[in-house]
Amino acid sequence: MNAADFAIRTLGPATLPSPLLRGDPEASEHVMVEEGDAVLVDDSLREVRALLAAGRELPCLERAGPRHKLFFRPERVTLGVVTCGGLCPGLNNVLRSLVMTAVHHYGVRRILGFRYGYRGLVDPDGHVELTPQVVAEIHAQGGSILASSRGRQDTGQMLDGLQRLGVDVLFVIGGDGSMHGALDLATEIARRGLAIGVVGIPKTIDNDLCFMDQTFGFQTAMAKAVEAIDCAHREAQGAPNGIGLVKLMGRHSGFIACQATVASGRPNFTLVPEQPFRLEGAGGFLAALQRRLASRGSACVVVAEGAGQDLLSGNGNGTERDASGNVRLKDIGTYLAEKIHAHFAAQDIEINLKYIDPSYIIRSVPANAADAVFCSALGMHAVHAGLCGKTEMLVGVWHRHLVHVPIRQVIASRNVVDLGSTLWRSVLGATGQPPRMT
Amino acid sequence: MNAADFAIRTLGPATLPSPLLRGDPEASEHVMVEEGDAVLVDDSLREVRALLAAGRELPCLERAGPRHKLFFRPERVTLGVVTCGGLCPGLNNVLRSLVMTAVHHYGVRRILGFRYGYRGLVDPDGHVELTPQVVAEIHAQGGSILASSRGRQDTGQMLDGLQRLGVDVLFVIGGDGSMHGALDLATEIARRGLAIGVVGIPKTIDNDLCFMDQTFGFQTAMAKAVEAIDCAHREAQGAPNGIGLVKLMGRHSGFIACQATVASGRPNFTLVPEQPFRLEGAGGFLAALQRRLASRGSACVVVAEGAGQDLLSGNGNGTERDASGNVRLKDIGTYLAEKIHAHFAAQDIEINLKYIDPSYIIRSVPANAADAVFCSALGMHAVHAGLCGKTEMLVGVWHRHLVHVPIRQVIASRNVVDLGSTLWRSVLGATGQPPRMT
Amino acid sequence: MNAADFAIRTLGPATLPSPLLRGDPEASEHVMVEEGDAVLVDDSLREVRALLAAGRELPCLERAGPRHKLFFRPERVTLGVVTCGGLCPGLNNVLRSLVMTAVHHYGVRRILGFRYGYRGLVDPDGHVELTPQVVAEIHAQGGSILASSRGRQDTGQMLDGLQRLGVDVLFVIGGDGSMHGALDLATEIARRGLAIGVVGIPKTIDNDLCFMDQTFGFQTAMAKAVEAIDCAHREAQGAPNGIGLVKLMGRHSGFIACQATVASGRPNFTLVPEQPFRLEGAGGFLAALQRRLASRGSACVVVAEGAGQDLLSGNGNGTERDASGNVRLKDIGTYLAEKIHAHFAAQDIEINLKYIDPSYIIRSVPANAADAVFCSALGMHAVHAGLCGKTEMLVGVWHRHLVHVPIRQVIASRNVVDLGSTLWRSVLGATGQPPRMT
Amino acid sequence: MNAADFAIRTLGPATLPSPLLRGDPEASEHVMVEEGDAVLVDDSLREVRALLAAGRELPCLERAGPRHKLFFRPERVTLGVVTCGGLCPGLNNVLRSLVMTAVHHYGVRRILGFRYGYRGLVDPDGHVELTPQVVAEIHAQGGSILASSRGRQDTGQMLDGLQRLGVDVLFVIGGDGSMHGALDLATEIARRGLAIGVVGIPKTIDNDLCFMDQTFGFQTAMAKAVEAIDCAHREAQGAPNGIGLVKLMGRHSGFIACQATVASGRPNFTLVPEQPFRLEGAGGFLAALQRRLASRGSACVVVAEGAGQDLLSGNGNGTERDASGNVRLKDIGTYLAEKIHAHFAAQDIEINLKYIDPSYIIRSVPANAADAVFCSALGMHAVHAGLCGKTEMLVGVWHRHLVHVPIRQVIASRNVVDLGSTLWRSVLGATGQPPRMT
Repeated sequence: MNAADFAIRTLGPATLPSPLLRGDPEASEHVMVEEGDAVLVDDSLREVRALLAAGRELPCLERAGPRHKLFFRPERVTLGVVTCGGLCPGLNNVLRSLVMTAVHHYGVRRILGFRYGYRGLVDPDGHVELTPQVVAEIHAQGGSILASSRGRQDTGQMLDGLQRLGVDVLFVIGGDGSMHGALDLATEIARRGLAIGVVGIPKTIDNDLCFMDQTFGFQTAMAKAVEAIDCAHREAQGAPNGIGLVKLMGRHSGFIACQATVASGRPNFTLVPEQPFRLEGAGGFLAALQRRLASRGSACVVVAEGAGQDLLSGNGNGTERDASGNVRLKDIGTYLAEKIHAHFAAQDIEINLKYIDPSYIIRSVPANAADAVFCSALGMHAVHAGLCGKTEMLVGVWHRHLVHVPIRQVIASRNVVDLGSTLWRSVLGATGQPPRMT
Repeated sequence: MNAADFAIRTLGPATLPSPLLRGDPEASEHVMVEEGDAVLVDDSLREVRALLAAGRELPCLERAGPRHKLFFRPERVTLGVVTCGGLCPGLNNVLRSLVMTAVHHYGVRRILGFRYGYRGLVDPDGHVELTPQVVAEIHAQGGSILASSRGRQDTGQMLDGLQRLGVDVLFVIGGDGSMHGALDLATEIARRGLAIGVVGIPKTIDNDLCFMDQTFGFQTAMAKAVEAIDCAHREAQGAPNGIGLVKLMGRHSGFIACQATVASGRPNFTLVPEQPFRLEGAGGFLAALQRRLASRGSACVVVAEGAGQDLLSGNGNGTERDASGNVRLKDIGTYLAEKIHAHFAAQDIEINLKYIDPSYIIRSVPANAADAVFCSALGMHAVHAGLCGKTEMLVGVWHRHLVHVPIRQVIASRNVVDLGSTLWRSVLGATGQPPRMT
Repeated sequence: MNAADFAIRTLGPATLPSPLLRGDPEASEHVMVEEGDAVLVDDSLREVRALLAAGRELPCLERAGPRHKLFFRPERVTLGVVTCGGLCPGLNNVLRSLVMTAVHHYGVRRILGFRYGYRGLVDPDGHVELTPQVVAEIHAQGGSILASSRGRQDTGQMLDGLQRLGVDVLFVIGGDGSMHGALDLATEIARRGLAIGVVGIPKTIDNDLCFMDQTFGFQTAMAKAVEAIDCAHREAQGAPNGIGLVKLMGRHSGFIACQATVASGRPNFTLVPEQPFRLEGAGGFLAALQRRLASRGSACVVVAEGAGQDLLSGNGNGTERDASGNVRLKDIGTYLAEKIHAHFAAQDIEINLKYIDPSYIIRSVPANAADAVFCSALGMHAVHAGLCGKTEMLVGVWHRHLVHVPIRQVIASRNVVDLGSTLWRSVLGATGQPPRMT
Repeated sequence: MNAADFAIRTLGPATLPSPLLRGDPEASEHVMVEEGDAVLVDDSLREVRALLAAGRELPCLERAGPRHKLFFRPERVTLGVVTCGGLCPGLNNVLRSLVMTAVHHYGVRRILGFRYGYRGLVDPDGHVELTPQVVAEIHAQGGSILASSRGRQDTGQMLDGLQRLGVDVLFVIGGDGSMHGALDLATEIARRGLAIGVVGIPKTIDNDLCFMDQTFGFQTAMAKAVEAIDCAHREAQGAPNGIGLVKLMGRHSGFIACQATVASGRPNFTLVPEQPFRLEGAGGFLAALQRRLASRGSACVVVAEGAGQDLLSGNGNGTERDASGNVRLKDIGTYLAEKIHAHFAAQDIEINLKYIDPSYIIRSVPANAADAVFCSALGMHAVHAGLCGKTEMLVGVWHRHLVHVPIRQVIASRNVVDLGSTLWRSVLGATGQPPRMT
C-alpha cells in the first residue's frame, strides 16, 4: 500500500469560483475543503510509527467536500447518472440528493438519468430528465426510479452516447462489476482526450467493498434480515425439534448474516463464506446441530448464500438443467435443508424444519433513516467531486470521513468478515456455535 | 341449513352464580347474555322473508358472552389449553386473554397449557402451569409459548391424559384438522359419560373457516404479505421486462392473496385456488403476461400456494424424489417461475424474474393491534363459554357479533373467495387481469 | 326506528345499462345488486320476533354495490370529490379507489378534486383534475392530496361552483359536520330542481359515526396509539413511582383509548368521555392511582381528549388568555398531569410523571393494510351509488355488509362506547381499574 | 490536547491469564488487543504533520478489546451494573450483552443489577441478580429492566453499598451527570485504597458526548423523529397555510433535529441550540416563515428543545409557578406555536398550525437493528475492560474503533453540531432556510 496509490485524477485544473461561496461567505468558507486535506488510511499508532520509522509516506485518502474552485461551470454543465446492478435500499435517496445538490446548491440546469443501467447510455431513448420536482418524493419508495440492469455494454458505444448528449460528468451508482465498467469508460474518455468525469458511488448490499465503513442500504437490509431471523426463531421454538433455517444475501462476504445474528441474538449457527465448514463427521455442522437439538429442542440457523460453496461444487449431478442447457446448481439454502432432512431421517429422528428465504424482501424496501442520512451525504459529495473535475474515483466513507478513493483501489480487493474481528467473535458468542466445524 | 343445526350442547344445567355479578352488579347485569340471545345466520331481508313465508324457523347463532349462571365452580375448576397446527399471529394473545379472564374475572386457580399440540395431552410431562405472571408479556412476541404440532393423537389416550390431570374444560386453538380431533374427543367424553367441556377457538391463517367474519391473525399476515408484494413491485419496475412473482399462503382459499392485492394496489395478476387458469394458449396466463410486458415493461404477479393445483398434478415426472422415496411435486411458485422462464426463452425475449416466497415470515410475527383486540375478545369469550358448560362448540364472530357455533357446522364446509363478491371484483379491478384465463 | 327512515333518495329512475355488464356478463351478473336487496338493521332474533309480533316492518339498510341500470351516462358524467375536516389515515386510498373505479370500471372521463375541503367549491381555482396517473401512488402516503379544511361555506355558493363546473355527483369524504353541510347542499340542489347527487363517505378517526362497524383509518390510528402506550408503559416502569400518562384522540367517543388499551394490555387506567369520573375523594381517580403506585410502583394511564370535560369546565380562571383575549381552557391531558403532580406533592410523595401526547402522529400516517382494503371498498361503492343516482346518502358498513344509509340517519346520533359492551368490560379487565371512580 | 490526557488508569497489573485463550487459542490469539494498541485521536494528515513537525506526541486512544491478561479472576469476581438518567433505546441490549459476555465468555458467576440508578447502590434492597436467563429476551423491549433515576446519591454511601455486596467492578450506563458521579466514586475508591473498577458506557440520546462517533440509541430515536416529521409534513400540506411544528429532543445539541431533517427531507426550517435565531424583524424566523407560506402555502418546522433558549429567558413573567413555587418557563415548542399564532393573527392571516411533540415516544422504543449491534459491542467491550482492571474510563467508539477514554476527557466538553460541517450544510440544503435568521 503506497501513498501514491491513493492519488485522485482530475480532468484539469479547477479554476472557476464555486457558487457555494455566494450567499453566506463566512459559513461557506468554513466548510470548504482545502487542497491537501486528507485522512490517514491507517490510523493505528503502531502503523504510523512503523511508516515514520521506515521513512515512508503515510498513505492518505483525499477528503471529500466542496472546494473553492470548480472545473465545470455549473449552469452550463450536463450531468448524467445511472444505477447499475441489483437494487439496494437508498438508490432513490442518492438520486434525490444528487439532483437537489446540483440544482439548489450549484445551479446546475441539466441532469439526465439513464434508464436500466448502462443500457441507457447506448439506447438513444434510454434517458430521462431529472429535476427537483421529479425526485421530490422518491426517497419514500424502494427500488430505483431509473431502474437498473446487470451486465456490460460496449465501452465505445457508451461513450458515444455520453458525447451525443453532451454529458460532462457521469455518476455511476453501482457495485464491483459496474465500477470495472466505469474504469473502462474513464480509460476510453482519456484515450479520446475528452474532459468527461466519471464519479462512482459504491453500492453493494453485501457491504463487500473496501474503503467504505459501511455501504449504503446495508443497515436497512440487515434490519429486514433480523425480522426474518426472528420469525425463524419463533418457528423453531414452535414445533418439536423445530429448526428455523434462514438464507440471507452475502455472495462473498457474510456481513448481513453476522450483523443480523448479533442484532437478533437468536441464531445458534451462522454460516458465512469466510469460514468453511463440513457437514458430516463428529466435528461437522450436522453433528453440532444434532447436539443442539438434543439439549435444547430447537435450533435457529442462518446461512449466507455464499457459504459452503465448496460443498455444492460437486453437487450438480447433471440431471437438472436450465433452459439454456446449463447444469443448475442447488443453492446452499435448499441444499442444507435437504441434508438436514436426510441426516435426521437416517436416524429416524423427527424434526420440523422451516425454511425461510427472504430474498429480495431485504433489498427492495425504502432506506431506513440512518441510511437516508448517509445516502444524502453520498449524493451531495459526489456532486462536489464531479464539478471539481475529479474522475476515475468514487466517494467513500472511511473512519467516518467522506473521502475520495480511486476506483482502481476499490475494486482491487474485497471487504470480507475478518475472523479475528469483534464482529465474528460476537457471532461466536451470540450463537455459541463451535468456532470451527471442520 | 336448519335452525336446529346451530343448537349448542352443554354439559348440563348451569346453576352456579357467576362471580362476575359481584363487585359491580349493575354494570355486570347489563353485560350479561340471556338464554335465547341469538343472531340471525342470514340477515338479508330477502332470505328472512322467504323463510317466514315458508313457515320455517330462522337459523340463529347463540350469542357468546358471560351468563348469569355457570356450570363449573371457577375456584375449583381446572382448565386446559392447547395450540395445534401451524403458527398464526395472535396465538399468544389468545392464551394471555384466556388466562387473564379466567384468573382475574372468575377466580380460576389452575390452568394447564399443553405443549406441542395434542402431543402434550398424551405426554405425562407435556404440560406447564399458566399464570398471569407467565403470560403477562407474551403478547408482544410471535409464535406460541406452548409450541404446537401437526397430526392426530389417539383420542382415548388424550382423554386419559385429561382425566389424569383433572381437566374440566379443554380449550383447543386450532384449525380444521384440530377441530376434527376436538370433535372426536367430545364424542369420547360423552361415551365415557364425563363432564369435560371442549371449547374451540378457530385458527387458520388462510381465513378459510366458516362462521368467522375473519379469523385472528389474518390481518397481520395479510399486512406482511403486502410488504412482500411491494418489494416484488419495485423489483419488477427495477429491471428490463421485470417480473416480480410472489407466492403467498392460501391452500384452499385465496383470501390473503386477494386482500393483499387490493391493499397494495400493485399486482397485475393474482392467481387463487378458487379461479382455475391455463398457462398456455391465447387466453392463458402466459400470453396475458406477455401482453402486459409488451405494453408496460414490467409485471407483478401474486400466486396463492393452492392455485393451479390441476396444472401441477401431472408434473411429478418421477426424477426427483425426497429422502423417503416419494415423488416430490414442485410447488406452484417455482413451477410458475420455470414456465415463465421457458415461455419467454422460447421466444428469445429477455425477462428479469424475481421470485419472492415470504413463507413463514407472514405468520410468525406478533399480532398487529387490531388482531390483538380480536384475540383478546376470543380468549375472553371462550372462558365465558367453557365455565357455562358449553361443549363441542367454538367461539366465532359472525356479522360482528361474538357467537357460539357447533364444531360440526364449522368443519362441514370451507370459506372460500366468492368469485361474485366485492373482494374478487376488487381484485379484478386492481389488477386489470382478464376475468378468466382459460 | 322505522323502516321508512332508511329509504334512500334517488335523483330519478336509473334506466341506462351499466357498462359493468360488458366483458364478462356472467361474472358481472353474479355480482350485481338487485333492487330491494337489503340487510336487517337489527339481526337479533329477539328484536326480529318482537317486530314481527307487533306486525311492524323490519328496518333494513339498502345493500351497496353495482346495479344493472345507471342514472348517469359514465362517459359524459363529471364527478367531484372533496375531503373535509381533519386528516385521517386512508383518505388517499379512498380517493384512489374512487378514481380507479370510475375510470377503469365505468369509463368516466372527468373527475374534479376540490382543494381544501368545501372551500374548493367556492374558489374558482380550487379544483384539480384527478386521473389514474395522478392517483396511482398516493395510497402510500398519509394525509390527503386534496388537502382539507374545517368549517362551512355558503351552501348557495358551493352549489353555484358545482353548477359552473358541471359536476353531476359530489362525493364528500368527511365527518359529522361535513355531512350536515352535504345535507344542506342536497336540500338546495332539490330546491333548485337539479339532478346533482351528493354521496358521502363517512370519515371520523374517533369511530363515532353510526351505521359503520368501524370507520376507515380507525385501525391505523389505534395501532399508532398502542405504540404511544407501550412507550408510556416503559417510561412508567423506568423510574421510581413512574407514571406514564398518554392522551389520545376521542372527543366524544373513547374507542381509540379503549381498543388501544385492550390491544396493548398495558394501561392501568383508561379514562373516556362515556364514563365520568372524579379526581378527589376515596373513590376518585387520584386515590386509585395512589393505591396502584403503592402496590406496584408504577402506573400507565390513558385518557381520551374528551374525558372529564365536566372537571375542566370551571377551570378557566381567567388568568390565561390567548392572543385574541379568549380564556384558554386547559386540556384534560395537561390538567390531569398537573392534578397528579399536585396530589402527590401535597403528600410529599415523589413521582416521575411522563406525559405523552402523540396528537397528530396517529392520524397523518398512511393507512395500514386492513384499512387500505376497507378504503378501496368504500371508494368503489361510492361510485356505484353515485352513478345510479343515489343521493343524500352515504356508504356505510353494517354487520360486514356495505350498505347505503341516509345522511340524516347517520348524523342523528353518535356512536359511543357502550359501558355494557364487551369492549368496555375488556378495558376494565385489562386495566383492573375500579368500574366507577365517582 | 496532550497525549497524556488519554492515558487509562488501571487498578493494578493484569497478571491472570484470560479464559478467552482457552478453546480456540489460534482464533483467540488473533483477536487479542496488545498493550500499546492505540488509534490516533486526530487522523488528518495536516494535524499529524503539524504535531510531528512540532516534535509532539500524537494523542491516541487506547484500543478496546480482550487482553491476554486479566486483573480479576472471572469466576470469583462480582460485577455490578446500573442504568442512570433518562431512558434510551438499547439499554436492555447493553445489559444483555454485558451479562452474556461475562458469563459465557469469561465464566463470571455473579452479576448484580442495581435498580433505579444510583439509588440502587444505597438501598439495601436495591439490586437484583442478573443471569443469562433473566436477560435472554430483554433486548426486544424498550426501557431498562433495571429502571433508572436522575440525580446524585452520596458518594460515600454508594461505595459503602458496593463494598457491602463485594462488587469488584461497577458498570455505569449513563450520561454526562452520571459520569460525574462515576468519577467521584472512582476518586473515593482510590481514597479508600480499594481495588474496585468503575467502567462507563456512555448514554445520551442527544449524541452530545465526545469521543463517540455516535451514541447508542441515537439512530433509533432519530428514526422515530423522522416519523413525527413526516406526520407534520402531511398535516402542513393538509390545510390552508398549514404549519407542521415538531419539537424534538436535543437540550444542548441538535443532532436528532438535524439528522432527522436530512433523512426525511421534509422540514423547511430546523432550529437547533447551536444556531441562535431571532423571531422578529425582516431577517427573523417569523418573516422567513411568512415568506415560505406566501410562496408555497405550507411549512414544516422542526425545533430542538434546547433551541432559542435566549428567547425564553425573559419569558417567565412570574405568573405561573409549579408546585414547588418555581417559575415555570414555557418550552420552546409551545412558545414558538404561540408566537407564530400571534404573528399571523396580528396580520389577520389565517394559518393552521399543528403542533407535534413526540416526547418520550422516540426514546422508550426498542433499539433498531443497527443500534442493537452497536450495544452488543459496547457491553462486550465494557466487560473486557472491567476484567482487565481498567477504571475511571468508558468505552467509546472513535472513527469506527472501539476505544477506552478517560471519563474526565469525555465530560470535559460537549459534542455539538458544527455549523461548518457537512451535517449542518445538509440541513441548510434540505430546508432551504436562511443560513442565519438573526
